[in-house]
Amino acid sequence: MNNSKITVLGAGSWGTALSLLLHKKGHQVNLWMKEEAQLKKIIATNENSKYLPGVFIPNSLKLFTDIEKAVTDTELVLLTVPSQVIREVIKSAKNYIRPNQIIINASKGLEQNTLMRISEVIKEELPSNPFAALSGPSHAEEVCKNMPTTLAVASEKKEIAELVQDVFITKSFRVYTNPDLIGVELGGALKNVIAFGAGVSDGLGFGDNAKAALMTRGIREIARLGKKMGANLATFAGLTGIGDLIVTCTSMHSRNRRAGILIGEGKTLEETLKKIGMVVEGVTTTKAAYQLSLKHGIEMPITEEIYKVLYEGSNARDAVTNLMTRDRTHEMEEMVEDANIDW
Amino acid sequence: MNNSKITVLGAGSWGTALSLLLHKKGHQVNLWMKEEAQLKKIIATNENSKYLPGVFIPNSLKLFTDIEKAVTDTELVLLTVPSQVIREVIKSAKNYIRPNQIIINASKGLEQNTLMRISEVIKEELPSNPFAALSGPSHAEEVCKNMPTTLAVASEKKEIAELVQDVFITKSFRVYTNPDLIGVELGGALKNVIAFGAGVSDGLGFGDNAKAALMTRGIREIARLGKKMGANLATFAGLTGIGDLIVTCTSMHSRNRRAGILIGEGKTLEETLKKIGMVVEGVTTTKAAYQLSLKHGIEMPITEEIYKVLYEGSNARDAVTNLMTRDRTHEMEEMVEDANIDW
Repeated sequence: MNNSKITVLGAGSWGTALSLLLHKKGHQVNLWMKEEAQLKKIIATNENSKYLPGVFIPNSLKLFTDIEKAVTDTELVLLTVPSQVIREVIKSAKNYIRPNQIIINASKGLEQNTLMRISEVIKEELPSNPFAALSGPSHAEEVCKNMPTTLAVASEKKEIAELVQDVFITKSFRVYTNPDLIGVELGGALKNVIAFGAGVSDGLGFGDNAKAALMTRGIREIARLGKKMGANLATFAGLTGIGDLIVTCTSMHSRNRRAGILIGEGKTLEETLKKIGMVVEGVTTTKAAYQLSLKHGIEMPITEEIYKVLYEGSNARDAVTNLMTRDRTHEMEEMVEDANIDW
Repeated sequence: MNNSKITVLGAGSWGTALSLLLHKKGHQVNLWMKEEAQLKKIIATNENSKYLPGVFIPNSLKLFTDIEKAVTDTELVLLTVPSQVIREVIKSAKNYIRPNQIIINASKGLEQNTLMRISEVIKEELPSNPFAALSGPSHAEEVCKNMPTTLAVASEKKEIAELVQDVFITKSFRVYTNPDLIGVELGGALKNVIAFGAGVSDGLGFGDNAKAALMTRGIREIARLGKKMGANLATFAGLTGIGDLIVTCTSMHSRNRRAGILIGEGKTLEETLKKIGMVVEGVTTTKAAYQLSLKHGIEMPITEEIYKVLYEGSNARDAVTNLMTRDRTHEMEEMVEDANIDW
């Protein structure tokens, strides 16, 4: 499908990269951003230098700061703004959005305080609109270079997932459908907590063995919570679970991992966020994830240690050391599901 | 447990690292190697320079080339020689091994032609001896630096797994037990095929998004085969499955990944093996894995493409491109188990 009208809300790295992908595919794209100064700079330089340096932005991509103009008369609205401002952005746009416009979220987080998934936020604000979530291992920088990338699109309605798949899919940008909206949303959000922890481990100089162990246990605790919340366990073994966790934990493109590295190296949270200079979803998601673990009574040792480092002043080295060198003896490897083989 | 008598067969990177770990823990270790020249060089330089450069080997570690002397009167025999020579080494030692000596395998591969797991090879040669497999994300270089490392030990007998756990465990070398011997052996062996493929993807310059997708699908096809062969699916989501795959695919310590990178960059298999200069288990395991997929009727698209690159002259770029850009539309994300959520 090559001729849809699509609004992209948010001109960060991912919003810009997806706008360019959709524009190149032949769709009519309206890219909205809040700041007039950013818009003017992009038009003047053909580059979104803060968020996606080095990538050419053609004049034919339509840019907006007026949200009414940006969303009016399009068929799909793609959200790429940080999770904590999604509700505010949708509130400012909802009077101009028709009930048949499909809302797609490509941000990865949970709403602070309400602990809502983004689909739940949207359902409160736009109860009639069809919704889909787009997620998977997909650094924006690589998508802009046409490097092979795979994602999943999840929706409660199969026909919506398939429509969104058709809109986005290209030869190198492969989109698969997945019926498990809860699992896809939770995996995308919660992996940032583990990626932050993996960064801390790297910052402390703990090596590849330790990081692989943290990631393995990390996806397991996410899956335990997800299962309790109604997700399909298999989703966490897929592109939007372990796949996205892998790419986030092993690449310097990841802000969440880089933030963890700085904390592991001894920087304060304030210094770290200042140095990164963009939203680090993992920092807010850690609090929400910790609260969800308490609410649902699920043990999440990695999330708990990261929470204590970020919000209760725990020492990062002690936290990761605790996780890696628990003293129990004769400990069996933990399994999400009961093992079907027994001694 | 700090005072066992242990034979280590094989003085490659892993055998040397484990010998040093056990020796430091207070065990009496006999490290056996085939070549007199290697033994003399280690004694003269206090270093195993080819396999573990920069690591000090004390004179108090006992070195042997006489396998009878090395295995006589010890309680445990740890195998670290390449999978393809395990049978030959065990044949040369079996007359001196008592039936109550515990055999532990720490090599990761399958026997060519017979397609046997190493526990099956040992059972043929030493039917009475207790057996355990030690596996997990554990680069030798990091273990020598006391960097935190986690592994699993699997055995059909719980008391054997727990005894081996006690023998190896230290503050930074954490060993967990797992009852699923088949899953632990298959995960350790087959991940090398995927790591080789990840290396090819890196060598072709395909990026982190593509590699994460390959790894995600890779562990899934291993799990499909493993389930058919009697393993517990959850094992593949654990340390010896995805954990070991992650460390192997993302670290330059991995010979399997480095071999893949060279192939991806256009080198021939012969040039690649010459350049690596050590056994690359993934190359032989690919053939065994492909034959197992045929034998058990399990689709393993990544293994098949890697097999064709290594053994049938397929072009590496075409192979990885095929894997990443399959043309089917409306494809759902594959799941190992039937999804429990449906549209």
